[in-house]
Amino acid sequence: MHHHLPEMLRRHPMQPSDMDVIRHCIEACVDCAAACTSCADACLAEDMVAELRKCIRFNLDCADVCAATGRVVTRLTRPDKALMRTLLEACLAACRECGAECARHAERHAHCQVCAEACRECESACRALLGAMPA
Amino acid sequence: MHHHLPEMLRRHPMQPSDMDVIRHCIEACVDCAAACTSCADACLAEDMVAELRKCIRFNLDCADVCAATGRVVTRLTRPDKALMRTLLEACLAACRECGAECARHAERHAHCQVCAEACRECESACRALLGAMPA
Amino acid sequence: MHHHLPEMLRRHPMQPSDMDVIRHCIEACVDCAAACTSCADACLAEDMVAELRKCIRFNLDCADVCAATGRVVTRLTRPDKALMRTLLEACLAACRECGAECARHAERHAHCQVCAEACRECESACRALLGAMPA
Amino acid sequence: MHHHLPEMLRRHPMQPSDMDVIRHCIEACVDCAAACTSCADACLAEDMVAELRKCIRFNLDCADVCAATGRVVTRLTRPDKALMRTLLEACLAACRECGAECARHAERHAHCQVCAEACRECESACRALLGAMPA
Repeated sequence: MHHHLPEMLRRHPMQPSDMDVIRHCIEACVDCAAACTSCADACLAEDMVAELRKCIRFNLDCADVCAATGRVVTRLTRPDKALMRTLLEACLAACRECGAECARHAERHAHCQVCAEACRECESACRALLGAMPA
Repeated sequence: MHHHLPEMLRRHPMQPSDMDVIRHCIEACVDCAAACTSCADACLAEDMVAELRKCIRFNLDCADVCAATGRVVTRLTRPDKALMRTLLEACLAACRECGAECARHAERHAHCQVCAEACRECESACRALLGAMPA
Repeated sequence: MHHHLPEMLRRHPMQPSDMDVIRHCIEACVDCAAACTSCADACLAEDMVAELRKCIRFNLDCADVCAATGRVVTRLTRPDKALMRTLLEACLAACRECGAECARHAERHAHCQVCAEACRECESACRALLGAMPA
Repeated sequence: MHHHLPEMLRRHPMQPSDMDVIRHCIEACVDCAAACTSCADACLAEDMVAELRKCIRFNLDCADVCAATGRVVTRLTRPDKALMRTLLEACLAACRECGAECARHAERHAHCQVCAEACRECESACRALLGAMPA
């Protein structure tokens, strides 16, 4: 499937100097939100669902925070650095906690292994954007 | 960037027979939601923003409906066909209206052209899933 | 707590003739989205979580669809009747299915009883807005 | 209209000691998300929309962050304090920036005045929950 986000950003009237890091962060947030939504649902279908409550809860939180972060970072018009910074910190925390919880079930549930990977990539993309932002 | 959704779905305990059509629909919804969020923001940055009100409004609606539809379709555990059917119809309508509005500005605003394409692909992916669902 | 939505709508440059029905629908969508998010979480905490999978899944779907519908109906600038109509139908379906599922556990789980009530009110508010919209 | 959230929380299997502060924070987030969605739309309808770009952008961000925060705080099952803390900081920042921007137009646009008030209440509710959380 064709992914339109890179081309959307290339055609945007605003062209910030750190566009590559921004684009990577949006893509990682969108990817992680989808992975976490799917992982919560896959956990819910498992026989041992009662042991996966914490994983489901973290998946739901991480999906919500990544979705909101992806939207905020997508907006290039009149950005607010103060909000973006704290939100990236929150997204980073959501991905770190969710990724750690998923990693604990990675051997038993392959979907948790894939989700942990999506979380790690998103955490690292948020950290990269935080690092690229002027102080 | 690695996209984790296809692998998430491959590892899911539920494996519906129309998984390819489902996966394509989720990807199109997620892609279109991101494109529409970006297009609303790009329109807001244009000098002629006053003439783009309708486009911005349709972009915001389409982003919200595509995001919700992408989440619902992602859930494979105990799906409800009645809800999925009406929601796919709503998503299809959002993409059709937003795509048509964007197409009207396509020559002047390249971001609207790209967004119109994302809307058309999502409309067609929703239609394909509707067609694949048992009556 | 002070609720600001009614006053926001009173101060909006657009004043559609069916504003009361619109306001009631937005409030019901926002209320039902919150109730469903809470019910999914309460079900997840129950000992018998394995028997509540369907309820959790319907809660998550209903929360997503109500949230998107609430946002779309809130927008009064250049509304699109075709989208609003199909989306209200989808929201109505989500509330009907989720409310029916919650009602089945109402005697055992008081949170499901309250959630079923929120779903019924939202279903009826969506139906009222559909009825008030010009054909 | 009957608001079901307080009763949902009263019926939840988890009963944290700071439930009143939690409930107040959820209600303020949900209220502020709705106010900001409406304010962005009202600004879009104003003649001077070109001068309200920053306000619209902050409204959209604040609506997204408040909605995500409201959902995360609503979940009482296996909460993660690290995520909740950073997310409340981000929500507080979103409300502070959006409220300040809205306050600048408060004399000219009554909807901005109401929205600024919703932002201030939500900022204060987030701060109260942060203060009530064990270190």
